Amino acid sequence: MKKVLIVLGSDSDLKVMRASTEVLARFGVPYELRIASAHRTPALAHELIATARERGFGAIIAAAGKAAHLAGVLASGTTLPVIGVPIKSSTLDGLDALLSTVQMPKGIPVATVAIDGADNAALLAVQMLAIEDKTLADKLYEYKKDMEKAVMEKDKAAVEGTL
Amino acid sequence: MKKVLIVLGSDSDLKVMRASTEVLARFGVPYELRIASAHRTPALAHELIATARERGFGAIIAAAGKAAHLAGVLASGTTLPVIGVPIKSSTLDGLDALLSTVQMPKGIPVATVAIDGADNAALLAVQMLAIEDKTLADKLYEYKKDMEKAVMEKDKAAVEGTL
Amino acid sequence: MKKVLIVLGSDSDLKVMRASTEVLARFGVPYELRIASAHRTPALAHELIATARERGFGAIIAAAGKAAHLAGVLASGTTLPVIGVPIKSSTLDGLDALLSTVQMPKGIPVATVAIDGADNAALLAVQMLAIEDKTLADKLYEYKKDMEKAVMEKDKAAVEGTL
Amino acid sequence: MKKVLIVLGSDSDLKVMRASTEVLARFGVPYELRIASAHRTPALAHELIATARERGFGAIIAAAGKAAHLAGVLASGTTLPVIGVPIKSSTLDGLDALLSTVQMPKGIPVATVAIDGADNAALLAVQMLAIEDKTLADKLYEYKKDMEKAVMEKDKAAVEGTL
Amino acid sequence: MKKVLIVLGSDSDLKVMRASTEVLARFGVPYELRIASAHRTPALAHELIATARERGFGAIIAAAGKAAHLAGVLASGTTLPVIGVPIKSSTLDGLDALLSTVQMPKGIPVATVAIDGADNAALLAVQMLAIEDKTLADKLYEYKKDMEKAVMEKDKAAVEGTL
Amino acid sequence: MKKVLIVLGSDSDLKVMRASTEVLARFGVPYELRIASAHRTPALAHELIATARERGFGAIIAAAGKAAHLAGVLASGTTLPVIGVPIKSSTLDGLDALLSTVQMPKGIPVATVAIDGADNAALLAVQMLAIEDKTLADKLYEYKKDMEKAVMEKDKAAVEGTL
Amino acid sequence: MKKVLIVLGSDSDLKVMRASTEVLARFGVPYELRIASAHRTPALAHELIATARERGFGAIIAAAGKAAHLAGVLASGTTLPVIGVPIKSSTLDGLDALLSTVQMPKGIPVATVAIDGADNAALLAVQMLAIEDKTLADKLYEYKKDMEKAVMEKDKAAVEGTL
Amino acid sequence: MKKVLIVLGSDSDLKVMRASTEVLARFGVPYELRIASAHRTPALAHELIATARERGFGAIIAAAGKAAHLAGVLASGTTLPVIGVPIKSSTLDGLDALLSTVQMPKGIPVATVAIDGADNAALLAVQMLAIEDKTLADKLYEYKKDMEKAVMEKDKAAVEGTL
Repeated sequence: MKKVLIVLGSDSDLKVMRASTEVLARFGVPYELRIASAHRTPALAHELIATARERGFGAIIAAAGKAAHLAGVLASGTTLPVIGVPIKSSTLDGLDALLSTVQMPKGIPVATVAIDGADNAALLAVQMLAIEDKTLADKLYEYKKDMEKAVMEKDKAAVEGTL
Repeated sequence: MKKVLIVLGSDSDLKVMRASTEVLARFGVPYELRIASAHRTPALAHELIATARERGFGAIIAAAGKAAHLAGVLASGTTLPVIGVPIKSSTLDGLDALLSTVQMPKGIPVATVAIDGADNAALLAVQMLAIEDKTLADKLYEYKKDMEKAVMEKDKAAVEGTL
Repeated sequence: MKKVLIVLGSDSDLKVMRASTEVLARFGVPYELRIASAHRTPALAHELIATARERGFGAIIAAAGKAAHLAGVLASGTTLPVIGVPIKSSTLDGLDALLSTVQMPKGIPVATVAIDGADNAALLAVQMLAIEDKTLADKLYEYKKDMEKAVMEKDKAAVEGTL
Repeated sequence: MKKVLIVLGSDSDLKVMRASTEVLARFGVPYELRIASAHRTPALAHELIATARERGFGAIIAAAGKAAHLAGVLASGTTLPVIGVPIKSSTLDGLDALLSTVQMPKGIPVATVAIDGADNAALLAVQMLAIEDKTLADKLYEYKKDMEKAVMEKDKAAVEGTL
Repeated sequence: MKKVLIVLGSDSDLKVMRASTEVLARFGVPYELRIASAHRTPALAHELIATARERGFGAIIAAAGKAAHLAGVLASGTTLPVIGVPIKSSTLDGLDALLSTVQMPKGIPVATVAIDGADNAALLAVQMLAIEDKTLADKLYEYKKDMEKAVMEKDKAAVEGTL
Repeated sequence: MKKVLIVLGSDSDLKVMRASTEVLARFGVPYELRIASAHRTPALAHELIATARERGFGAIIAAAGKAAHLAGVLASGTTLPVIGVPIKSSTLDGLDALLSTVQMPKGIPVATVAIDGADNAALLAVQMLAIEDKTLADKLYEYKKDMEKAVMEKDKAAVEGTL
Repeated sequence: MKKVLIVLGSDSDLKVMRASTEVLARFGVPYELRIASAHRTPALAHELIATARERGFGAIIAAAGKAAHLAGVLASGTTLPVIGVPIKSSTLDGLDALLSTVQMPKGIPVATVAIDGADNAALLAVQMLAIEDKTLADKLYEYKKDMEKAVMEKDKAAVEGTL
Repeated sequence: MKKVLIVLGSDSDLKVMRASTEVLARFGVPYELRIASAHRTPALAHELIATARERGFGAIIAAAGKAAHLAGVLASGTTLPVIGVPIKSSTLDGLDALLSTVQMPKGIPVATVAIDGADNAALLAVQMLAIEDKTLADKLYEYKKDMEKAVMEKDKAAVEGTL
């Protein structure tokens, strides 16, 4: 199975991004977690992405805050899909990271998820790997069913007045 | 080869979204273009997405403006990755469509591209299909090289003062 | 008397939305509180709304955060008026939910109230039911008078310097 | 049948608000169109709203731009539901009118629709009147079916390549 | 000397607006503090403003949050200058109150100060009263000098490294 | 009678600000129109404001776009009230000028009107001068009556269907 | 004299950025104009910046729109100051480019000027080169004097009523 | 070596701006820290900037919040480069200070860094002084290498699972 490469712009993003590793673990999708800044370690970022396909990765997740360039910089160096997670920082409530991640110019897409959307980034990666993988697709279907069940139980509690 | 399903919330989005079909055509990726509104034709939207995987689609592109729910509604009905294109309308400069598309709750990701980013939506779909397809990945690599060449020619013109 | 159907996208919205049930209780308007996600339980959402009129509901209140599609999805499935409450979440201060709820395309209105405006959503529902119900309208008039009295007592305290 | 009272803050809003009168006419719902500014003619605005219920109105539509206070001022004077249409003006792309209309304090709801959403305001008014009116509700159902048909024809054209 | 009328949309605004009364007290400018909501007590608001000039007021300060209509409603009922203080509430960081206060349509100005700018609202009122009052103008000059002195002492501390 | 000093940050603001001079002329209030940039001619700006009171001015109007510092700089140099008009420029729709004008720190208020609100700036200046001037206050009252009449004629036309 | 390196993310930025070359020419500061995209030609961008200091450049100007990463990417590769010009594109009025350029993380500053502020970018570069260059500093002083004179002539025209 | 002049609009900005002095100290760049408000002590601000070049300063750092005019006012009085630090205050999350600092009109640039970006302001000042100073440029290079090393150690920990 293809692996997922998770790159954090800073180790301070780990608190939010643990949700990504947990989702991937739940689906049994192997991943590698790396710290590489687009600005502080451009060489490392470049090396990580240049070798990603040959090292068996199928999708990239990049998380960064403020003027979040990491996802874009990684996307420029690969033909693999890159998923961007805008991280909320101490000012502007994450809007800066969102716009810096999603408003990519023509030719270099970044698949952007919600601000601090670490869980959805991982799910999106799993969906990508599941395009050709029936077993993984079935797990995603089960995951959906589990979500549905959880909501329906809450709804049942609401109906019964035990919420 | 897996196909790409392009769903427009309204035929008025076609002007912007032609760029998606052109990119897919360039890469030789088969696609189906459909009009289905999350709100006006929920049954059609549901049917399109419920059968998407079995009908041979590998990725979905959904385009909508204003309170753009289409991508989210499609994402809720499939385990395939859904790419959302926020369409700019006559007020708020596309910010409403962007936030309505990207800020999806946990469990239902939408891979969001830039406002009116039809070309990048198609490229992202191609990247997803190319995860397991070496030939397509090579075409993406060539596409990158062509973009690079085009910029470098402009740069050469700048250096020679003929821009 | 017609009932009010309150649908929450998540049970975490209940904390804010208790204000809706309290207002309805004060006016003696019967209501049903349900949990149904537009994305996680589309079938439940669809079923709830499809049968709403025949089950005796006269107005719907839908509460959701982030890319808040619930009100729109419900509105697409009924000819009853749907009131949307945008819920503030951890990023963007509620702006995402507001725009996702209010900027509905032509044909599918959502009667949107303020971010976290659970009390006003219920009042609006009561106003709708009171269009043809003189007794309920009188209660609304009393409610207005009570509000007025409360402010005037505060003003009196201000004048007397005992605020 | 109850009538709908449409109040414009300025006659310059008429261009946008014609869509409201057209929708009401289509549904055979009687309406009265008035010009009354919350700030320039507060007495007129007050008189219009104070007598609205007894004069046979069931719902109010108020349209205003910039610091749009009209809907709120009317809502303060009636127990009928008031629908607010934020009108886009020459600066800030309608955001000022949207926030001034929707962010109403506790006790005085305004049912807000999209910026320049004149058609949806009228549909919402019809929905309110149709709560107790089976014939009108059936017309709304037909309207929904017509919308659905129109989209499905566009979709058929898309499938046939004749869009 | 003319007095200043301070009107709060809610007694919860008092915490912020105490700064206004303190500044007026410092300048020896008499004031009256009232609670009157544009929406909950329109009659009280109207009466307060209609008699303001004859009761000896020279300037009005109005404070309100969210869709802050109070300043505009008061301004519509007087030829006295009305100063608006947008109050920050629990969502949108005060932007809604700012736009609702400042973006007044032609004919009805509101002299808007910063979000939560209670002190500056009072200073502005004093400046208005001081247009024709040499003694008050001199006090304002002294106030400026005091501010200047306070900053210069901080600067001296900075230079001496004792900050 | 006290005069009004109108200061434009650039002669390109004149197109918008003509509305100020027209309103002042209508009220017979003498004014002086000057061009002085806070940044390009700080000395001129300083001189204009330092002598404003002694030269017979009672209120200042300052208009500037982008990072609009002019009103604040003038306010720092006088005890007269300064009215700020944020001018919309080619980017950000006037939001930059609005925030730069209105969000003044404690001690230096600027009475801010709407973006491009030249007419209201002049009306506000007249209101300030009319605090102690019964004749001018009466003219303002007439102005209000004229506005009211104009709206009521439009309303009459609406009622008669001749709008 | 040190030169200024101007890098455009796309040749479409040239229309705005001509103002930079004109200002530099006016000051007799040599410059090189290059086209290099952070995403399409990362190698070219890297090479340009890696050799900038040794090739005699003293300051860099980088212009880009949307998710404008160019200035940040260049700044990561040099110890020279990098000036960023956010370019307005077809959506969001330049806000995306502004935030992507200015909100740089700790360690990699970008000296950001106004949206489309090509002239000021060049002036800032000249100011940097003039820190140690008395002749250039004198030219900047003359430039300031010329600006001042131009405004004062406009002011004279305003005073004489010939504007 | 040229010195850096740091000017704070208020001593309350010191908490954020300590990071500037720490960075300058690390690089051995002499600085002077002053408190001077554009509005409360315009004379002091003017004097500080008018003598800055002759007193041996090579770059200015100005920090202010809300309608942050300080950097612009200083820039208008010198030919030295002025670096602006927008300070986040209690409302609007720093957006007001950012726009007031960066959106400077033609002719008076301010080199703006991120909201609360005190460290980057100092680094930018060092970069400016290092244009002609090989030793300082080498220190900047070492600083970059240290940052790189720190990230790579974090990355090593991530690879080893000891993060």
